[in-house]
Amino acid sequence: VKKSEVVRLILKERWRAAPYHLQANAYAPINIALCKYWGKRDQELNLPLTSSFSISLNNHGATTELKINGKENDEIFVNDILISEDSVFSKRLIDFLDLFRHDHFPRFTMIIKTNIPIAAGLASSACGFAAMTLALDKLFNWQLPKDKLSILARLGSGSACRSIWDGFVEWQVGVSADGMDSYGIAIPNKWPDLCVGLLIMSLQEKNLSSREAMQRTVMTSPLYQAWPNKVTHDLFILKQAICDNDFNSLGKTAESNATTMHATMLSAWPPVSYAIPETLHAMHTVWKLRDQGLAIYFTQDAGPNIKLLFQKNDIQNVREHFAAVDIVEPFLEI
Amino acid sequence: VKKSEVVRLILKERWRAAPYHLQANAYAPINIALCKYWGKRDQELNLPLTSSFSISLNNHGATTELKINGKENDEIFVNDILISEDSVFSKRLIDFLDLFRHDHFPRFTMIIKTNIPIAAGLASSACGFAAMTLALDKLFNWQLPKDKLSILARLGSGSACRSIWDGFVEWQVGVSADGMDSYGIAIPNKWPDLCVGLLIMSLQEKNLSSREAMQRTVMTSPLYQAWPNKVTHDLFILKQAICDNDFNSLGKTAESNATTMHATMLSAWPPVSYAIPETLHAMHTVWKLRDQGLAIYFTQDAGPNIKLLFQKNDIQNVREHFAAVDIVEPFLEI
Repeated sequence: VKKSEVVRLILKERWRAAPYHLQANAYAPINIALCKYWGKRDQELNLPLTSSFSISLNNHGATTELKINGKENDEIFVNDILISEDSVFSKRLIDFLDLFRHDHFPRFTMIIKTNIPIAAGLASSACGFAAMTLALDKLFNWQLPKDKLSILARLGSGSACRSIWDGFVEWQVGVSADGMDSYGIAIPNKWPDLCVGLLIMSLQEKNLSSREAMQRTVMTSPLYQAWPNKVTHDLFILKQAICDNDFNSLGKTAESNATTMHATMLSAWPPVSYAIPETLHAMHTVWKLRDQGLAIYFTQDAGPNIKLLFQKNDIQNVREHFAAVDIVEPFLEI
Repeated sequence: VKKSEVVRLILKERWRAAPYHLQANAYAPINIALCKYWGKRDQELNLPLTSSFSISLNNHGATTELKINGKENDEIFVNDILISEDSVFSKRLIDFLDLFRHDHFPRFTMIIKTNIPIAAGLASSACGFAAMTLALDKLFNWQLPKDKLSILARLGSGSACRSIWDGFVEWQVGVSADGMDSYGIAIPNKWPDLCVGLLIMSLQEKNLSSREAMQRTVMTSPLYQAWPNKVTHDLFILKQAICDNDFNSLGKTAESNATTMHATMLSAWPPVSYAIPETLHAMHTVWKLRDQGLAIYFTQDAGPNIKLLFQKNDIQNVREHFAAVDIVEPFLEI
């Protein structure tokens, strides 16, 4: 199944219709997976081999301004820098926009602003494609329900389908070949005490994309076969932990899910490790603090940065040990 | 099955006989597993869940001098330091000696000298128990064949059963409950060009023994279930690589086996990582050099230190990138 077929299924007669506005804005938050998306069953549609589960970080994300520019080409600005048309990022974005227009027209000027580092394992492409999808919905006046927007965002970047919502989101694996049953669903539970601490160790772009690392893991890791069962188990425990407000269960499950994902990468060939020495140092610090009785856990995505999980009561304590931590309260009204 | 029953099966009427000499010396090399021993099917007898495969590092190891001391207690000196009787190491060694004597008599003075750091993932306990077994064989004049000595050494420390030989050794998993079919077998192939480079990052004793880490992995890692098949595959490829003198196949298989073992640990709960920042730095250096065309691989055991695998031609090159490397040529006659 091609992306364009999915787009047509969703938009129906509105597919490739003329824009309704000349300009539209949208914002989407980054999301941190507590149970990771690692492995695709369909490369074209970004359909996953397992479900996954995330929390959106309300005030960290991307704003997209989409303007019809009347020019021959798209122009993409990320944080005020004009991005080359030949870059991988531009190509992915332009391919995505092409799904919704005729013969490359109309052309857009996109002004993307993020308050997080790009391509450093902080889900920048997820919030970017989610914001772009929301902006397209406004520009073309599709008025699509959020589940359909989630499917469209997934065509740009898998985990973007979770950034359509705030709070907890489950991305259902789905079974259909066209992926019409594989999208994010908001979990309404709130957890006001929950804190996420971003530890940015490196602003460098990673030299292996998560797309490639994922594919290499699925193709070569002898341990990957055990991953789907691990996800099924962890998803169940996470949802139970949220119902029970059991922070240690949530933290343990999220950390164990992350270390297990990284374990599948380490066992791939060639081995993949996104850790840099600072990452390892932070992990050992978390383990030491936990041994000392602090309820703190971490998760890590396809990059060197660590995301801490802890509760509001411990903010002071966490700051003492991680001076540079950027603390987010995902359920704080903003 | 108890250790003492195995000892009786092997020694028969010689079990707990009086010593033949007052003193005996023996030496055993450390061995580096190219296919790891990770997981026991029997804690008492150190019977493994899989076979494993190693290379002994001829001139790196332990010398043991065993003397009947006529005292009330054993005395253990390691590198000229008297070891407390209450230490874990003393207890393990005394328990082992008790298998061969009546009511704790005779008592011994043991003078153990190693030219490698202790308990830092350099197989110090393996060569220690192997040397001790060889010294006991002389002291009691058992004149046991090496396969039987390998079984006895295993009762002290699993991988000690491989340090009874030089060169390549396969430790057969075995199937019997008493472990009489689980011991090291020398593989006669020689590989004069093969070099092992020891990169000692830390002389600190590890704070989690490999025994505990192994047990935790078997009990809690969701990925461990895939490990036995990985070992079966790697053993086959390693033996083929040795027959074919195919260094890249040997190196790739050894490295992938090690990263996969560490992956099973990382996915245990609580997660286990023996890497320190220097370990990670060395791993990344190996990957970078390999990308540049150098045939270099690494392996790592239950400690932070890295062991490089490369060929004689590249010694100069390896020294340039790893100034502190200690290079061993396992097949050099010494």
